[in-house]
Amino acid sequence: MNQQYQNRQVLLASRPTGMPTKKDFEFRDIPVAEAQEGQVIVRTLYLSVDPYMRGRMNDSKSYIPPYNLNEVIAGGIVGEIVESKTNLFQAGDKIIGMLGWQLYNTVDAKTVRKIDESMAPVSAYLSVLGLTGLTAYFGLLDIGQPKKGETVVVSGAAGAVGMLVGQIAKIKGARVVGIAGTDKKCDYLKNELGFDAAINYKTTKNLDQDLEQACPNGVDVYFDNVGGAISDAVMNLLNDHARIPLCGAISSYNSTDDNMGPRIQSKLIKTRSLIKGFVLSDYADRQSEGLQELGIWLSEGKLKYEETIVDGFDNVIVAFLQLFQGTNLGKMLVKVSDPAK
Amino acid sequence: MNQQYQNRQVLLASRPTGMPTKKDFEFRDIPVAEAQEGQVIVRTLYLSVDPYMRGRMNDSKSYIPPYNLNEVIAGGIVGEIVESKTNLFQAGDKIIGMLGWQLYNTVDAKTVRKIDESMAPVSAYLSVLGLTGLTAYFGLLDIGQPKKGETVVVSGAAGAVGMLVGQIAKIKGARVVGIAGTDKKCDYLKNELGFDAAINYKTTKNLDQDLEQACPNGVDVYFDNVGGAISDAVMNLLNDHARIPLCGAISSYNSTDDNMGPRIQSKLIKTRSLIKGFVLSDYADRQSEGLQELGIWLSEGKLKYEETIVDGFDNVIVAFLQLFQGTNLGKMLVKVSDPAK
Repeated sequence: MNQQYQNRQVLLASRPTGMPTKKDFEFRDIPVAEAQEGQVIVRTLYLSVDPYMRGRMNDSKSYIPPYNLNEVIAGGIVGEIVESKTNLFQAGDKIIGMLGWQLYNTVDAKTVRKIDESMAPVSAYLSVLGLTGLTAYFGLLDIGQPKKGETVVVSGAAGAVGMLVGQIAKIKGARVVGIAGTDKKCDYLKNELGFDAAINYKTTKNLDQDLEQACPNGVDVYFDNVGGAISDAVMNLLNDHARIPLCGAISSYNSTDDNMGPRIQSKLIKTRSLIKGFVLSDYADRQSEGLQELGIWLSEGKLKYEETIVDGFDNVIVAFLQLFQGTNLGKMLVKVSDPAK
Repeated sequence: MNQQYQNRQVLLASRPTGMPTKKDFEFRDIPVAEAQEGQVIVRTLYLSVDPYMRGRMNDSKSYIPPYNLNEVIAGGIVGEIVESKTNLFQAGDKIIGMLGWQLYNTVDAKTVRKIDESMAPVSAYLSVLGLTGLTAYFGLLDIGQPKKGETVVVSGAAGAVGMLVGQIAKIKGARVVGIAGTDKKCDYLKNELGFDAAINYKTTKNLDQDLEQACPNGVDVYFDNVGGAISDAVMNLLNDHARIPLCGAISSYNSTDDNMGPRIQSKLIKTRSLIKGFVLSDYADRQSEGLQELGIWLSEGKLKYEETIVDGFDNVIVAFLQLFQGTNLGKMLVKVSDPAK
């Protein structure tokens, strides 16, 4: 073990039923493992908490295996190399990787990727220049394929993925309608990001009616982050040949009931619409294409991003649980430490 | 008016609520209109009754406009030219077209297409060599894209489209599981058409369990003709990257309730599956390709088709209503008259 650093990590202590609680997680203080030849020790700077992680806490088949009980939870992490036993990295390098929720990760150098601090703040690699940006990019452009003048509706619009989806749809010339859960978020979408309309689903008296008003020409693309009753309502406004990228269904992640709603098959037939679930790994071979275009839009000022940063490693569970209360504007991150260099 | 022939036609008298009844239709005896220059008079030989027609009886937006009240219902018809005022056709020619439910149609010659009696009995142009065959062909091959060794499930499997879907899937090397509503139909699918398994959804004690047994490797393609609880069950067995061509939802066509069921979004995300509504007109420019291949398979004996023929024009409503009781094996047709030549 390494004497210089003291590690602290988060384990999955039990599989949550419904909404997770702090009791489902356990903090553990242990030594940091020594770096072997070809390995590096990474100090965590920022750690990403994401809705999809809730699914990995269940013991059920999905696109990624479930977390194991009593093992460290893994997620997107930006970190700084503090010790390197490879010539691929040197101390001070900033990297990104899917690493453990802990203060230090001792890992093979090949499992992390160097990031360019000169292009954007390092935290951006956990949002617009990372999985979040790529998810918005491929889901919207590959499945949604918005065309100029079409109407794009995005749910979870003030979330990390949603706000990028809306902005990319605007870049492509679409009319963009966002659905979010507070007036503050709706104002932000309209005033800061240029959304054409935004609907507060929590305070609306009639979601169907508000949607119809916001989408006078129907819905051509529905980028779905939430599922549930919001999606039920959008499905009534589909135009012919509508496209629905299914990115998430956060409304159901903690649900323990059957999640019943109106069946959508007839609506899809009448409009010959397409609905497709996707995950980013489906586009593994096109990531550099996506990152390049996102980087260009970012540098041109066409793409804004927001971060909600919770301070301190010990608050990681609090931050994760806040995702399901919708308190975050943009990407939810935990700041764990400052870089040494 | 033409003195030689006496016409009889079926009008939509009222828009049905739920299951249509005979009172929603009206028979009318009128003279046959004279053929003008460029027109033909067609005697109806066979008339096609199809589930999609139920949707056109509602006054709601869909991929084809609703039938007008007090107008003749239109559908697929095979007929014989009895009078021609064009050199495109001569008396005795057999044609197919979307024509009125009546004994005689006086129409522009360009609205009908000559069929080849030497290739198959004329009624086949209303099933395997017509809209039915093309619907199976494009829905399965363009959206479903079954690969060798994959599992294809088809609901409404003993219906006109369903039994062709299963056979085409077999031609492509897939394992094929049919869902139908009588033991006789299930036996037919297995013994006559070579389906690998067939499930009687009306007598099964546990549809989920029977499906799991019939699909030990999960479901890669689900060709959906019925929607409802049957589709709910199939959705639990989707493999990664499953494809679901949505052809029909006959279980809901006469439903007056909200048609509630488990929401499918999470299942589609977990498996990154695609579900797409389609209608044949989406493939208008590829019809000859489809007809050619269907014709080859038919001539090679790889494709069998079945017809349930109800005799007599006056029984057209009876035949139409029987579609929703599932009494038909294969294509439901009404035989209206014998050809003169």
